[in-house]
Amino acid sequence: MNRTLSIRSNKSGKGTTSGPSGNRRGFSFNSLRGTVQPELSRKLFRLIKSENNLISAHETAGRERISIATQLSEWGEHTNDEAISDISDKVGVVLSEMGELEDAYAHALDESRGLLKTIRNTEKSVQPSRDGKSKIADEIQKLKMKEPESAKLVVLEQELVRAEAENLVAEAQLSNITRQKLKEAYAVEFAATIERAEKQIILAKHGRRLLSLLDDSPVVPGDARQPYEYSTQARQILNDAEDDLKDWQPEPEAYATPSQSPTPSVKGKATETSETGDSLATPAIATHNGGEGGVNGNRTDGMAPPLQ
Amino acid sequence: MNRTLSIRSNKSGKGTTSGPSGNRRGFSFNSLRGTVQPELSRKLFRLIKSENNLISAHETAGRERISIATQLSEWGEHTNDEAISDISDKVGVVLSEMGELEDAYAHALDESRGLLKTIRNTEKSVQPSRDGKSKIADEIQKLKMKEPESAKLVVLEQELVRAEAENLVAEAQLSNITRQKLKEAYAVEFAATIERAEKQIILAKHGRRLLSLLDDSPVVPGDARQPYEYSTQARQILNDAEDDLKDWQPEPEAYATPSQSPTPSVKGKATETSETGDSLATPAIATHNGGEGGVNGNRTDGMAPPLQ
Repeated sequence: MNRTLSIRSNKSGKGTTSGPSGNRRGFSFNSLRGTVQPELSRKLFRLIKSENNLISAHETAGRERISIATQLSEWGEHTNDEAISDISDKVGVVLSEMGELEDAYAHALDESRGLLKTIRNTEKSVQPSRDGKSKIADEIQKLKMKEPESAKLVVLEQELVRAEAENLVAEAQLSNITRQKLKEAYAVEFAATIERAEKQIILAKHGRRLLSLLDDSPVVPGDARQPYEYSTQARQILNDAEDDLKDWQPEPEAYATPSQSPTPSVKGKATETSETGDSLATPAIATHNGGEGGVNGNRTDGMAPPLQ
Repeated sequence: MNRTLSIRSNKSGKGTTSGPSGNRRGFSFNSLRGTVQPELSRKLFRLIKSENNLISAHETAGRERISIATQLSEWGEHTNDEAISDISDKVGVVLSEMGELEDAYAHALDESRGLLKTIRNTEKSVQPSRDGKSKIADEIQKLKMKEPESAKLVVLEQELVRAEAENLVAEAQLSNITRQKLKEAYAVEFAATIERAEKQIILAKHGRRLLSLLDDSPVVPGDARQPYEYSTQARQILNDAEDDLKDWQPEPEAYATPSQSPTPSVKGKATETSETGDSLATPAIATHNGGEGGVNGNRTDGMAPPLQ
């Protein structure tokens, strides 16, 4: 991971929160708003499309893996070598199971994609509210220049107040949905990553045991191989792998979700030292360092390193 | 893993070592030998092609993952929400690293594919030796019927002896290469599977820590969110992830390779109870159960379960 601590390609020379102006693509001028997707939801729209490609790739990987597993077994049978025949068949079972896990992973990614869609749909529905508000404000601005005494101004001002109230709700909904669903979406992806990984480790380790049953010491021409006598053991290894997969359980998530906190939001700026982040003071981040910069290599929390 | 203990689709109603007749594909009659690929190497030829598809799928997955990572970060910046901006950027770094691991995995699969190619090439080169031997034997057979006293018979018999000697070497080479490279190829795949899995677990766990920094408690319309103050911590999480990835080391393989044994092969059938498999008596399989059938759920070895 010898990269920078940000993945943003357009970060240099700009503020961290540069907002919409930070967009490098050609079609995001405000004047083009709504031509294809509303500006607000366009980026996520594209991301969700890419996510689809990712899901397809993992599905393909799973399918090819399962096909290879069968082919390996059939090739092994074809060699007329009893040891190779048995081991290739059993390794095939292991590989096939890995393929199924790849497919299950793709399904979990699809679930995560569904959550991102919820954000996108909310973004899409908030856009007209923003547009409506700024349209009325623009009208008022123009009218004030042209006819400062117009009776229509009062009506427009009333409309603006209503539009602002409506938009206030919409923006709060967007903020709430975005944070919740973003967290959920990536919690699902990370959980699926861990599940695929842990189960494939189980399979790979038992796969190695299977390989160890294959005698690969060279034979001299004319000499016969020792008879193969590990078929019972090979079967036992598959049983062990099956048992280990059955016993697998997901670790509980390392953090409590902030939504468990009854106090939804606190106004005003918290001082740097006080732990006002009540809803965020989870075990994993309890001793967080409030100082700016000065990132040293020391761990600032009590979290155990993974994979010990 | 609720499948059978074999992956072979054509197993039912046949002996376990049914050999070439077990082939279900149309083009494997002996009469078609050599039209495309020699019969002997055809199955592996196809498998290696499928392996190529598998590699491409993982490469695509890696590429899409990295693209999504950048898109997520850019989307987050666009939301004008400082917390989402920072977390999405950092989660993007984690996802991008996962994509790189997917790509590294594809490379390892390619290495494994190269080892399978060695087997296929040997199969290909052994085919003419088999064909040559049987051609001479056929000729002798025919000549004995037609001209039992022919002087050419002596020459052919000598040729057959030479062809048989040559084939004996070729078959031994094939057996040696096949067993060695098959083991190596899948050892590489299993090692790569474990590496990708363990590293992605590291990343996913730190990814979860990042998500925990995002307050998703709902806000009431009009209320402001608490200011985001976890950027230092988020940076520290990336540093921790980087440190953990740097510290990662492959576990040593669980078994000693039988090729370390000085005795290449023992003729004759070993009795069921004696541990003649000297070269195979590795720690992982030392107490193997020599009995036939009767596979019960008990572990028959002292191997610790993975992922404790």
